[in-house]
Amino acid sequence: MKDIFNFAPGPALLPEKVMIKAQKEFLNWRELGLSVMEVSHRSKDFLELAESTEVNFRELLGVPDNYKILFLQGGATLQFAAVPLNLAKQNSSADYLITGSWGKKSMKEAELFLDVNVVATSEHTGYTTVPDFKDWHLSNDSAYFHYTPNETIAGVEIDDLPDNINVPVVADMSSTILSKPIDISRYGLIYAGAQKNIGPSGLTIVIVREDLILNPSKFTPSVINYKVMSENNSMWNTPPTFAWYMAGLVLEWLKEEGGLNSIGLLNLKKSKKVYDLIDSSQFYISKVDKRYRSRTNIPFILFDPSLDSIFLKESAELGLVNLKGHRSVGGMRASIYNAMPEIGVDKLIDFMKFFENKYG
Amino acid sequence: MKDIFNFAPGPALLPEKVMIKAQKEFLNWRELGLSVMEVSHRSKDFLELAESTEVNFRELLGVPDNYKILFLQGGATLQFAAVPLNLAKQNSSADYLITGSWGKKSMKEAELFLDVNVVATSEHTGYTTVPDFKDWHLSNDSAYFHYTPNETIAGVEIDDLPDNINVPVVADMSSTILSKPIDISRYGLIYAGAQKNIGPSGLTIVIVREDLILNPSKFTPSVINYKVMSENNSMWNTPPTFAWYMAGLVLEWLKEEGGLNSIGLLNLKKSKKVYDLIDSSQFYISKVDKRYRSRTNIPFILFDPSLDSIFLKESAELGLVNLKGHRSVGGMRASIYNAMPEIGVDKLIDFMKFFENKYG
Repeated sequence: MKDIFNFAPGPALLPEKVMIKAQKEFLNWRELGLSVMEVSHRSKDFLELAESTEVNFRELLGVPDNYKILFLQGGATLQFAAVPLNLAKQNSSADYLITGSWGKKSMKEAELFLDVNVVATSEHTGYTTVPDFKDWHLSNDSAYFHYTPNETIAGVEIDDLPDNINVPVVADMSSTILSKPIDISRYGLIYAGAQKNIGPSGLTIVIVREDLILNPSKFTPSVINYKVMSENNSMWNTPPTFAWYMAGLVLEWLKEEGGLNSIGLLNLKKSKKVYDLIDSSQFYISKVDKRYRSRTNIPFILFDPSLDSIFLKESAELGLVNLKGHRSVGGMRASIYNAMPEIGVDKLIDFMKFFENKYG
Repeated sequence: MKDIFNFAPGPALLPEKVMIKAQKEFLNWRELGLSVMEVSHRSKDFLELAESTEVNFRELLGVPDNYKILFLQGGATLQFAAVPLNLAKQNSSADYLITGSWGKKSMKEAELFLDVNVVATSEHTGYTTVPDFKDWHLSNDSAYFHYTPNETIAGVEIDDLPDNINVPVVADMSSTILSKPIDISRYGLIYAGAQKNIGPSGLTIVIVREDLILNPSKFTPSVINYKVMSENNSMWNTPPTFAWYMAGLVLEWLKEEGGLNSIGLLNLKKSKKVYDLIDSSQFYISKVDKRYRSRTNIPFILFDPSLDSIFLKESAELGLVNLKGHRSVGGMRASIYNAMPEIGVDKLIDFMKFFENKYG
């Protein structure tokens, strides 16, 4: 079997060691003679798994004791609704910063449930930058401030926030969670679909400061009611047990790899290699403001778009797959999550150099 | 590895052939060099899987063309909210028949969104029977009639409905879907969590008549908005791809086994064996009205409850596991889904006879 390096934006590749372990114990987990997916979520064995997964999340991300970690379903997109339903007080509004397609989607969904104030948007730039702090219009009475620290489609990443946000900060971290250390205490709530850095699709993580979950709207379905889910250890109903198990294996792998400091440095190194090549070339172009380039999703275009299909064909032949850019942006996109080994990036760069020499 | 027969109510066991196939191609699906869980849900390969899974659902269940099949997340419990949000007209009420704990839970959730009329309840009997049709109080102006054809905890199953229900019938079929042929055209909507007869937990199936999904409440989160999901082939957001894949394998297995007529007869035979033993014994007792005994979940108590723990210990030693009854009912429960082979039931019966001879 040929080595495949999968640059898909998500569902993304998972660490090879994790996949091999999961395959090995697929039919016989913990010597029970059963698959983990055939075991009750309320069994002693699964509860131990659930507990250790939470402990590892807390340790890796440095989650303070006054934050709950919830294991939910429905993807980040269901959280687009859950956040206003749980956090908005009656008749309140919320602030949304829009730096990409996902931020805009989250805002559109929130508008079903409350009034939205757009703090600033970079839509007119094609989402290639972040509006200057001085142009942000924060409101005085919003229930929370929402943003998307990393936008996977246009490839924009925000590291800092201004100091004058005086309401709980809510972040859709689907594509950055576990990619580097973060200060959880800076946030009121973060959420993430699992299918990039956590595990397979079908699991959603919510980390929320416990004082924020006390007054959900009465129209909140119980399954996305943070208070109900928190009181029931994310088991108000049957959770997605196999995805939860896979997330547990990924977290153990991350600890073995040295945790978030270590993986953060590696992610920086991997992305820098690609950007350095792009910047040294007249053939590959990045449209994104250098101050806000994503370490995770690197969109780039070829100087001659008529070569796009040849680039995709020849790269795929070498096992470098899923490099096609999002249809709204065109060109290519290399998504480089935690599970992408450095050698995959090196092979991509070698191919990009080779391709430029051949066609440039 | 010892043969294990898992009588858990769900997440339940999966067909052995399915598990072996899934393990074999876990790292390399369709010779892509990737796991199915590492593949984009919008890739050609996954879309083919999604399509064939739907085709097999339609074929096995005989789903008419004017019904949509949706592949969702959040379990049946999220559907408890989705049903009223999608189906209730403004200021309308809905009829709920309560024949067990799950029906009551679904009603409680619906009350968040509309007025509920309880058609009838068997709660005063400990949910051991179904109220007579003549005692049902159907309302004239309800948006729909909701019931739970099989209650997993007390073990009550309803086959027929009265003829005078003039509104769309909605059924939580989590524990009976695919267990026998049904006439879909009798229903407006059926829904089911996957973790009994379909696949692993984390996937929820909704089959809905397309004229019913046109006017969701404006407060419906998009992820549970049947109209949005239908228009996007259940891919408004990233679906639980691995669970979907497993469901596809289960449906192929069901077709190989002869489809729902065949599996329905086998399920009847398997459950009859257990009930015959119970009825011929003074040692084992079923509390459920014989007219409404579940073919899927068979609760029974021992004449002497002090033997419960010994029964559970000795059965587990023989590989007959997860026979403990729900805490609200006590005693034992044998959940016999499609994937339980007849030999598992035979071993259970042999053990029950042996145990009665030893301790009775």
